[in-house]
Amino acid sequence: MQLGIIGLGRMGANIARRLMRDGHMTVVYDRSAEAVAAVVADGGAGASGLEDFVAKLAKPRAIWVMLPAGGPTEGTITELASLLEAGDIIIDGGNSFYKDDIRRAKTLSGKGLHYVDVGTSGGVWGLERGYCMMIGGEADIVTHLDPIFATLAPGIGTIDRTRGRNSPDDRAERGYIHAGPAGSGHFVKMVHNGIEYGLMQAYAEGFDILKMKNSAELPADERYDLNMADIAEVWRRGSVVSSWLLDLTALALASDAELSHYSGSVADSGEGRWTVQAAIEEAVPIPVLATALFARFRSREEHTYADRMLSAMRFGFGGHVEIPQ
Amino acid sequence: MQLGIIGLGRMGANIARRLMRDGHMTVVYDRSAEAVAAVVADGGAGASGLEDFVAKLAKPRAIWVMLPAGGPTEGTITELASLLEAGDIIIDGGNSFYKDDIRRAKTLSGKGLHYVDVGTSGGVWGLERGYCMMIGGEADIVTHLDPIFATLAPGIGTIDRTRGRNSPDDRAERGYIHAGPAGSGHFVKMVHNGIEYGLMQAYAEGFDILKMKNSAELPADERYDLNMADIAEVWRRGSVVSSWLLDLTALALASDAELSHYSGSVADSGEGRWTVQAAIEEAVPIPVLATALFARFRSREEHTYADRMLSAMRFGFGGHVEIPQ
Amino acid sequence: MQLGIIGLGRMGANIARRLMRDGHMTVVYDRSAEAVAAVVADGGAGASGLEDFVAKLAKPRAIWVMLPAGGPTEGTITELASLLEAGDIIIDGGNSFYKDDIRRAKTLSGKGLHYVDVGTSGGVWGLERGYCMMIGGEADIVTHLDPIFATLAPGIGTIDRTRGRNSPDDRAERGYIHAGPAGSGHFVKMVHNGIEYGLMQAYAEGFDILKMKNSAELPADERYDLNMADIAEVWRRGSVVSSWLLDLTALALASDAELSHYSGSVADSGEGRWTVQAAIEEAVPIPVLATALFARFRSREEHTYADRMLSAMRFGFGGHVEIPQ
Amino acid sequence: MQLGIIGLGRMGANIARRLMRDGHMTVVYDRSAEAVAAVVADGGAGASGLEDFVAKLAKPRAIWVMLPAGGPTEGTITELASLLEAGDIIIDGGNSFYKDDIRRAKTLSGKGLHYVDVGTSGGVWGLERGYCMMIGGEADIVTHLDPIFATLAPGIGTIDRTRGRNSPDDRAERGYIHAGPAGSGHFVKMVHNGIEYGLMQAYAEGFDILKMKNSAELPADERYDLNMADIAEVWRRGSVVSSWLLDLTALALASDAELSHYSGSVADSGEGRWTVQAAIEEAVPIPVLATALFARFRSREEHTYADRMLSAMRFGFGGHVEIPQ
Repeated sequence: MQLGIIGLGRMGANIARRLMRDGHMTVVYDRSAEAVAAVVADGGAGASGLEDFVAKLAKPRAIWVMLPAGGPTEGTITELASLLEAGDIIIDGGNSFYKDDIRRAKTLSGKGLHYVDVGTSGGVWGLERGYCMMIGGEADIVTHLDPIFATLAPGIGTIDRTRGRNSPDDRAERGYIHAGPAGSGHFVKMVHNGIEYGLMQAYAEGFDILKMKNSAELPADERYDLNMADIAEVWRRGSVVSSWLLDLTALALASDAELSHYSGSVADSGEGRWTVQAAIEEAVPIPVLATALFARFRSREEHTYADRMLSAMRFGFGGHVEIPQ
Repeated sequence: MQLGIIGLGRMGANIARRLMRDGHMTVVYDRSAEAVAAVVADGGAGASGLEDFVAKLAKPRAIWVMLPAGGPTEGTITELASLLEAGDIIIDGGNSFYKDDIRRAKTLSGKGLHYVDVGTSGGVWGLERGYCMMIGGEADIVTHLDPIFATLAPGIGTIDRTRGRNSPDDRAERGYIHAGPAGSGHFVKMVHNGIEYGLMQAYAEGFDILKMKNSAELPADERYDLNMADIAEVWRRGSVVSSWLLDLTALALASDAELSHYSGSVADSGEGRWTVQAAIEEAVPIPVLATALFARFRSREEHTYADRMLSAMRFGFGGHVEIPQ
Repeated sequence: MQLGIIGLGRMGANIARRLMRDGHMTVVYDRSAEAVAAVVADGGAGASGLEDFVAKLAKPRAIWVMLPAGGPTEGTITELASLLEAGDIIIDGGNSFYKDDIRRAKTLSGKGLHYVDVGTSGGVWGLERGYCMMIGGEADIVTHLDPIFATLAPGIGTIDRTRGRNSPDDRAERGYIHAGPAGSGHFVKMVHNGIEYGLMQAYAEGFDILKMKNSAELPADERYDLNMADIAEVWRRGSVVSSWLLDLTALALASDAELSHYSGSVADSGEGRWTVQAAIEEAVPIPVLATALFARFRSREEHTYADRMLSAMRFGFGGHVEIPQ
Repeated sequence: MQLGIIGLGRMGANIARRLMRDGHMTVVYDRSAEAVAAVVADGGAGASGLEDFVAKLAKPRAIWVMLPAGGPTEGTITELASLLEAGDIIIDGGNSFYKDDIRRAKTLSGKGLHYVDVGTSGGVWGLERGYCMMIGGEADIVTHLDPIFATLAPGIGTIDRTRGRNSPDDRAERGYIHAGPAGSGHFVKMVHNGIEYGLMQAYAEGFDILKMKNSAELPADERYDLNMADIAEVWRRGSVVSSWLLDLTALALASDAELSHYSGSVADSGEGRWTVQAAIEEAVPIPVLATALFARFRSREEHTYADRMLSAMRFGFGGHVEIPQ
């Protein structure tokens, strides 16, 4: 089928390519004419602006917006809404906050427009591995778009089937789900990212213990000089902690076990923060996921005001001197 | 080659079977004659006691002890030491504390005996998937035992190779490593389990947020009734959080998405505790791994004394009444 | 001076009383006629409704709203705003979210009304000890209300002066501060409560360790049967951890060292949750404060879905059975 | 009565002085002749070596060892044991690990010697405020030493009595307790310090939120430029979070609200680490106390290996570049 795509960054352009490889048609637009030209070279129809883009799409139009969450997505959807007609469909494939989805779906439905939110995992590997998608929106619209999702998803592939699954709906096994009404796709993706932070931090802390096992603070006969790359590699084989994140870790360690060309100043995105917020609204205890988020905040600072205050109190009660040299 | 195995629980018996399937010979012993008979039925040579067991092994003897850590392992190794001769090898395949390994290796070397510690991951799936092994001990002894390890390990199998690995030693890719001197095998396995706790807790917290998203505490239009089994399934396909633990989670959810036949009273074993201790000795911050351990402690209690003290303070300053009905 | 007070719960009524004891006049209103009558008996002028209440106040009116945050406060302020005249002052002494203060101050200023937010600590002890107040709003309005704040605050009292303080403004030493513009009073109070959660949890965890030191899990010669009441008492005297919360703990333990008549099902209020949210907006790591909040969430549940999922995974990889008996 | 004191650092020398001011006699020894001379100038009897020290004490001798935990304390006690006679008493007033106390008490009792462990809080303020003491050992020996403890303790002073206390033993109210058998004094002191870490971290995180409320990451109308010194000061007056640590914080902030001359590289001592270990042995969940300890570890590093591993994984799955400039 035909899909319009706005936003041709790494994700958007690769989504267009994966669709076209499977016989779909795309109309594409990006502020950068160069980005448009690159996809046109691979078979897409390029648009010179939003009006041109809308004009080139057959009704009912299906438009995938793949822009940074917040301002860019919000602005584009607002502008699109004024150009589209009843029955058209806007898909937000970015990382919007799910409460924004709920609000937008309500507003757009007043104009007869449909809104679908797609949480998309797969990163730079998606073109090759396929995209894992969590979809929120009206059931019949999601069904209408099924050819798109079926192509973008990884498919059953070589991954073992889960014994005991007994569902008439095999979409989960092919790599996408219709999670529920508007916002639910991004909600599930948001929690996915929250978990991702926790998993990453668990590995990172564990490897830190392994690495520091040759610390001079330890008795000499309790020190080991362990091979980080081999440990990550061996855990990929039959251990309880094998995972795709571990595969990536092994990859990084294979080329530089010291990881010395990484800054360790770790960014965080909205999803990790929103996950904590969602848990608090539900009164669900998530000490590990929250702590993983805070570890990232901490990684970006040198000495916090909090740290200095601890030094100050220690000086206050014990005369302990912790003063910069 | 020939291997003696003491302790024929699930792990020990399956190790014997995996070895025999590949042409190795085993001499086996267990306090339970029934357990011995079961392995003998599959081709092992059974022993009636430790002396008989030792007598049936060719020199230099190689003996794999697969017993619960602590008393049973310690007692058996002590008794074995009095029966063996210089050049013989004792392998501890259980979950011993690595400092016990260091001590034992020192003591046994005084008698000319060799000690090898093997941290083994794979659980009940090992017979089928193979065992991931982390090995500590003298390099030449580990090399001497290589045929055993090569058979027990999963092998390269269908798992993608890690690009950029460039090592003359391909053991890690076949599922086992020689980590370093005595104790290092169990040390790496210990940290492996510490990470396992963190990963499990990250998934568990995330799914708890998803499950509680239909909580009556939330505004009606922000509630979703999400399908836990489908979410676990879809994340297995191309997402960043795919892992073997997620596969197991999908398996459990496929048969009962409420998980209502699990108690939620979660045990912990020595490795999780020792991991925290090791990190403290190294001054490595591991808030996530420690918190994951504490979540297990907490899961086994109803209301802690700490909880009641919070209630008492709240009553003290605010007159808030938190009294059992 | 004259102050109108709406909301005569424990806090509101005691505020009226503390003011009248010091010679101020109060006009009071509450939905409960009984509550009004009780304060009238102590010298206040009672009102029969909001219009009557407003009519009884001299201009410029100063009205202290002491109601539950959220709906009750919001509704009352909205209604008041329609009855008041330019120059009048609304004080929110409850626990409103500071962003609501910012919004309200803006709205009310459009009508020439002034808005002051007062975070008030002191709980049921305030009548006796005085109230610690953190105030947000326009400087001249806060100055105009100074006689009220000066009376409600504890005053310098017998508490040691802080050496080195050198400020022309002695309000902090008398127990109240003008923190900044609208919302800042409640913001500071919010963080105060976030800290309170952390302090309480620290004591609670510590006493839990002391209490469990006679656990049968420990070797017999490492068990102690410690006296909780004596420990709390002795720490009040010259130790680093002495505090008012510890005083309250000692009080509770003096009458029942088992704390057996407390449920341990610990409530939380908005401030603890908002504190985490504020920290996330600022990217400030607060693992301890967040974990303290989560401990309260956890205290209110028996076994979480998260706990059951851990059991399920353990069964999955190790055949560990954690099934309710 | 007469007390021998070994170790005349800040704590030891002040203990001697506080005793002499109240009429007790001291015999003092330190490796530094200068330190001895200083106390002799205030009235103590100086010793030139351990033998001379022992010779100058009347039987049964009572000797207070005030040295760094570990080697210095252990060595001195071992040497003393060879010089003393049955009935003599060794008091360890330092910060020994309580399991060392249990061991020492057993060893010394074989020689008829008595061992008392005293956890002492009060730091540099003890001479003035008195020392809060937690004492472990045989009841009759602790009673024999009572004149010493009574003098060193703060006494009832001006601190409010705890209503409802009803105990024939008023020692807790005078600032010291006999906690139980050998080791229990240091055990209670250890947990005291664990709590101290948690309290300090709670304040530090809270003030960090307050400080960062003028962060440029926030919308302009939600920023406040708060006065840290005034906030700490006002909370000392009638608030729920008032405490001695807050008094110290107010003191530090009064002279420098930026705390810019503190390094923020925060040390930790054995007690914080042992507290976590003790909780793990008891299976008591202490997420806040452990996290407070880890915050100190983290404060001493720039970017951890763990941080760099997070960067590496983020690069792996998303192409996110976190490379040092």
